[in-house]
Amino acid sequence: MSVGQAKPRLRDLGITIGTMPTGPLNAITDVPGVRVGHATVIQGEGANAARTGVTAIHPHEGSAFTSLVPAAIAILNGAGEITGRSQVDEFGTIESPILITSTHYVGAVHRAVIDWLAVHEPGLGPWFVIPVVAETYDGFLNDAVTQHVTREHVFAAIDGASGGPVAEGNVGGGTGMTLFGFKGGVGTASRQVELGGRRYTIGVEVQGNFGARENLLVDGVPVGLEITDLLSERGTPGEGSIIVVIGTDAPLSDRQLARLCRRGMLGLGRVGSTARNSSGDLLLAFSNTPQNRVPRQSDEPFIASVRLSDDHINEVFQATVEATAEAVLNAMVAAETMVGRDGNVVHALPHDRLREIMRRYGRLRE
Amino acid sequence: MSVGQAKPRLRDLGITIGTMPTGPLNAITDVPGVRVGHATVIQGEGANAARTGVTAIHPHEGSAFTSLVPAAIAILNGAGEITGRSQVDEFGTIESPILITSTHYVGAVHRAVIDWLAVHEPGLGPWFVIPVVAETYDGFLNDAVTQHVTREHVFAAIDGASGGPVAEGNVGGGTGMTLFGFKGGVGTASRQVELGGRRYTIGVEVQGNFGARENLLVDGVPVGLEITDLLSERGTPGEGSIIVVIGTDAPLSDRQLARLCRRGMLGLGRVGSTARNSSGDLLLAFSNTPQNRVPRQSDEPFIASVRLSDDHINEVFQATVEATAEAVLNAMVAAETMVGRDGNVVHALPHDRLREIMRRYGRLRE
Amino acid sequence: MSVGQAKPRLRDLGITIGTMPTGPLNAITDVPGVRVGHATVIQGEGANAARTGVTAIHPHEGSAFTSLVPAAIAILNGAGEITGRSQVDEFGTIESPILITSTHYVGAVHRAVIDWLAVHEPGLGPWFVIPVVAETYDGFLNDAVTQHVTREHVFAAIDGASGGPVAEGNVGGGTGMTLFGFKGGVGTASRQVELGGRRYTIGVEVQGNFGARENLLVDGVPVGLEITDLLSERGTPGEGSIIVVIGTDAPLSDRQLARLCRRGMLGLGRVGSTARNSSGDLLLAFSNTPQNRVPRQSDEPFIASVRLSDDHINEVFQATVEATAEAVLNAMVAAETMVGRDGNVVHALPHDRLREIMRRYGRLRE
Amino acid sequence: MSVGQAKPRLRDLGITIGTMPTGPLNAITDVPGVRVGHATVIQGEGANAARTGVTAIHPHEGSAFTSLVPAAIAILNGAGEITGRSQVDEFGTIESPILITSTHYVGAVHRAVIDWLAVHEPGLGPWFVIPVVAETYDGFLNDAVTQHVTREHVFAAIDGASGGPVAEGNVGGGTGMTLFGFKGGVGTASRQVELGGRRYTIGVEVQGNFGARENLLVDGVPVGLEITDLLSERGTPGEGSIIVVIGTDAPLSDRQLARLCRRGMLGLGRVGSTARNSSGDLLLAFSNTPQNRVPRQSDEPFIASVRLSDDHINEVFQATVEATAEAVLNAMVAAETMVGRDGNVVHALPHDRLREIMRRYGRLRE
Repeated sequence: MSVGQAKPRLRDLGITIGTMPTGPLNAITDVPGVRVGHATVIQGEGANAARTGVTAIHPHEGSAFTSLVPAAIAILNGAGEITGRSQVDEFGTIESPILITSTHYVGAVHRAVIDWLAVHEPGLGPWFVIPVVAETYDGFLNDAVTQHVTREHVFAAIDGASGGPVAEGNVGGGTGMTLFGFKGGVGTASRQVELGGRRYTIGVEVQGNFGARENLLVDGVPVGLEITDLLSERGTPGEGSIIVVIGTDAPLSDRQLARLCRRGMLGLGRVGSTARNSSGDLLLAFSNTPQNRVPRQSDEPFIASVRLSDDHINEVFQATVEATAEAVLNAMVAAETMVGRDGNVVHALPHDRLREIMRRYGRLRE
Repeated sequence: MSVGQAKPRLRDLGITIGTMPTGPLNAITDVPGVRVGHATVIQGEGANAARTGVTAIHPHEGSAFTSLVPAAIAILNGAGEITGRSQVDEFGTIESPILITSTHYVGAVHRAVIDWLAVHEPGLGPWFVIPVVAETYDGFLNDAVTQHVTREHVFAAIDGASGGPVAEGNVGGGTGMTLFGFKGGVGTASRQVELGGRRYTIGVEVQGNFGARENLLVDGVPVGLEITDLLSERGTPGEGSIIVVIGTDAPLSDRQLARLCRRGMLGLGRVGSTARNSSGDLLLAFSNTPQNRVPRQSDEPFIASVRLSDDHINEVFQATVEATAEAVLNAMVAAETMVGRDGNVVHALPHDRLREIMRRYGRLRE
Repeated sequence: MSVGQAKPRLRDLGITIGTMPTGPLNAITDVPGVRVGHATVIQGEGANAARTGVTAIHPHEGSAFTSLVPAAIAILNGAGEITGRSQVDEFGTIESPILITSTHYVGAVHRAVIDWLAVHEPGLGPWFVIPVVAETYDGFLNDAVTQHVTREHVFAAIDGASGGPVAEGNVGGGTGMTLFGFKGGVGTASRQVELGGRRYTIGVEVQGNFGARENLLVDGVPVGLEITDLLSERGTPGEGSIIVVIGTDAPLSDRQLARLCRRGMLGLGRVGSTARNSSGDLLLAFSNTPQNRVPRQSDEPFIASVRLSDDHINEVFQATVEATAEAVLNAMVAAETMVGRDGNVVHALPHDRLREIMRRYGRLRE
Repeated sequence: MSVGQAKPRLRDLGITIGTMPTGPLNAITDVPGVRVGHATVIQGEGANAARTGVTAIHPHEGSAFTSLVPAAIAILNGAGEITGRSQVDEFGTIESPILITSTHYVGAVHRAVIDWLAVHEPGLGPWFVIPVVAETYDGFLNDAVTQHVTREHVFAAIDGASGGPVAEGNVGGGTGMTLFGFKGGVGTASRQVELGGRRYTIGVEVQGNFGARENLLVDGVPVGLEITDLLSERGTPGEGSIIVVIGTDAPLSDRQLARLCRRGMLGLGRVGSTARNSSGDLLLAFSNTPQNRVPRQSDEPFIASVRLSDDHINEVFQATVEATAEAVLNAMVAAETMVGRDGNVVHALPHDRLREIMRRYGRLRE
């Protein structure tokens, strides 16, 4: 079991995705400067049960508002929301922390980010800011119409964000989410590559909430066809969505980051995604290489930057595929059975049965 | 002067854009069923002056939530926000009224739309909804950090929306906006085409807030080079953005509606837009042909629809170019000089000088 | 072994991809009307060895020039060519047979299609036509600079196209191609779905030429890590590309066909694609539902069409993922070891070793 | 009249587009290193009359194959062809000279570029190349089915390309083209901007073949409504298309070059384009800043580059709008009345009548 973690992760169960080395934490926070914070809201029972939250990701150690980073967004299936997309497309940068929450809370979280910036960035006045807020839908376990996530939760997630191990499963925006009919939520993973004699990290964090049970693949093994029970009794938890955030310290341009997003899609394919109709499968990638950051205010007419040669990018692609797939599975391994709105239940993926199946298919590292 | 209108519009000044006939109101509401509502917030002086608002557009006479319409979004320059874009791209429909407001109010308006739907659509429960909320920035005249637009304003705009003449200029989301250094805001126009022996309408409504003075063209005349005074004394009102909403009752598919959005861009070019760097020039088009609406809930596996043959679409393109250009100019003609935040002033386009210039260039119809 | 086929296919080896039923031929030609033709050019040795060809796919039983079908193109990684893309995007239709060949032969094949249409379509005169020609690169086995594919080959492929079983492996445009370091080429597969009480087919044909050996997955099993020999001795066969053509008789709009292309990408992910840097991974989907065809010449201003409700599309997505993955693997199973340019050798995937590995991983159906 | 030019250009007639200074030649060749070559084919009469050609543009003084430049492509209306688009999107570079010809000759020209590279680039062998070939349709004046443009013409255009004044009107790929019902063809223009204390040039070359007469605007004046005669007697010359090539030595990234393409669209709007249904309005932009070129072969894992700050880009946008509009008009002013296929006639825009109209509308600089 990983040091400093109370719960087993996928690798602790003897299951490894791909062949590349992970970072020390196997988390997006292996990318230097990246910070993650969660605010989790679990309260009440019945029709108004709150099983939800919000997650904040800072792309670097400072302020994304004053020091923007290259970024890109791509869409596998668009039944979801990620605000700020037009501006990310136009300028190839993001200018705020990234927030992820429940579908109907996007608006309130969006406003709270403005409020937070108004407090923390005295320079906001003359500027406008277009935050990045994304979502997946937790309406099976959570009373998703009522605004359970407040401004205070958003501030807590943003202010409480830190490096180090990332809480997974039923936390933050992932609290009430479902993956392949099992309990889902937040997951993370990372890979390391060597480029030009230096080590770089590709980290992925997902808020996972998608998939039909029968499609679940774990390291290629059709686990979803093997575990056909443990489905929710009353109706289906829905098909959900997934937000994939890919961060790296490798110097990649916005164009190259869009390429990474498309490899994130292939990572989703690895765990069995068919990108079902009502799924919002939205991917964002950023690079926080210090010399490529764009200051909000500068009189310099020209901007120097460095990027990886496309001829050397294949390992970064491979890393993205692997880390995306593993982040989804880490979310499932970490998540615990939850009883939510109107007594709806979503079961956790049972670790022992998962191990047994993987052993049967010759995929358990023991 | 148009019947029932207190203020002159562009045509009342003897200026005509293009050659095609307008609808009876020369407004987006000439499209049967389209309804527009504004909530205007003008209060206070000094640092906290409110000069802002919110505008709602219903794409048809009923509920866009229960009966979706084909739609498309396109971006000329992306320094802005229009939520719901990924879903519009994926399904080719919109499922909510369209809201337009100030940049930092997108979040609160987004949430208010959820609240409004929760009240009016008992069916919201099992579904999630992804509203369309767009914005331009009024921070020169309005204290844009403070949340002046409330849930009540949003409800008022949505509930108060109606057919008939559309208020223009300093109203709704356009209250504090600027166009080419003159006062801007809401504008509308329409054109009629005959297709297959029946008359259809293309209507445009803009929330206009873009442009450098020197670029302003009125019917091809360089008015912005002729009127070099009447600029704001303290700083520039900024370069703003424009939201263009194109509605029609002609049967057009989502693909064809995306084509209309690109003609809206050419209409912006006609009034002198160069789509400056920090401008969010965002266009949405919808068609409300009754037989093409998509019911939210249906067990029918197949959907029949009808569309205009692309071979017959040129007049619709021409109509879109003309109506977009005229809607921008109508916004300027209607808008009145405004004193706002910190005493900042944006002057109205002077009608008499405009007429004099147009006459000099041989473009005044008298 | 399948009736009427001299060579085993993937399923003949006891390997099944996914869970959905195939069409009778497990080929794109299970889609009624779809016809495939190959012209194969294998001649000479040494520096000028020809190991190449061209493949033609007619989207329906008649002329795609006079009766266009809805279509869409999407790009996973763009290091390749598919002509006609801008027009397919704009009109949502294709107007020619689809040709697939070697990279440097795109031009000559493009011209030959014009010539073929000039002969067969007396109506070409007043119209222009924009053919769809796609490619992958066979320069390791083929002298790809010399124009080995001639107008006669193109005519032969177009004229010789037929329904029925589709030749796979080293044929047509796929003759000199490589997949995961094994011999690749043409592959096909199909799936059947029931929609509204009627059976429809989704068929896929690929010209497969991509992948690093270590990434190869067969039904989730890391075959590429198990077979590390049988690599080309002199250099790598390159990373190639893949053209994926998805055809169906289900009534899908151009927007929905673009959605299918994105599921084709997930199918590539299933066999281990990471969409490497120099790979042109290009996907085209068409629907040949008779009532949705668009006549080249018509005075009708309106066009009626029918489409599947998006709410019923998930099985079509699943079918596309499965058929795409299986088509790639069918190409490898059918392809035979080839000696080509300068004595370069690419080995066939050994069926016995593949079966042995699959058995070891519990994935062999016996 | 400009020094060294036999024919008047737009400015020689006293008409000026916009306010920014031109380069010395008011041509794309004002951008250092850019070279243009034309091969013109005018021969025969009657059904087989050839009125066509091909144009080559080298993006810099050397080989685009060995030293690639940042580039982007964007589409206003897609009824046309520009090969290489997927690869330009993926890598943000072009790797060949840009060729422009007649629609049905794209294939033969594409192949001829391969042949030319095979001769001139001994390094082609191990690589594949994906040329950029674009087109507009000259079938009204030219027998466009017969392959009148040969490999020799392509070599002549590529090899004969040079800096200095650019021939306009009935030359190269523009030979048989039509603009707004007048004779069209090749046109060029340029603008200069000062960025960071240095002067840079934005140059545009068009192959212009679009527009309905009534839409023609010259500096905002409705010339197309004023000259309603001089239309082709037998049928319409068709609606054609336009290829816009934007070159600059200003350091712009591929993302920024895509932004320039969208401003080229606004330039087309300035001359009255409504982007009619069957028009292929395709735009390509490149930057040839020496330090941003990408070597075909390099072991360097990282690439340094410099780009203009987006905050300083507005003048470049304005320059692009102005130069695009003026290039179209320069094509019309240079083109001469042509009798072509089957005796079809397209008339030149009469300079005297143009001047008279412009004077009447107060737009003639005398």
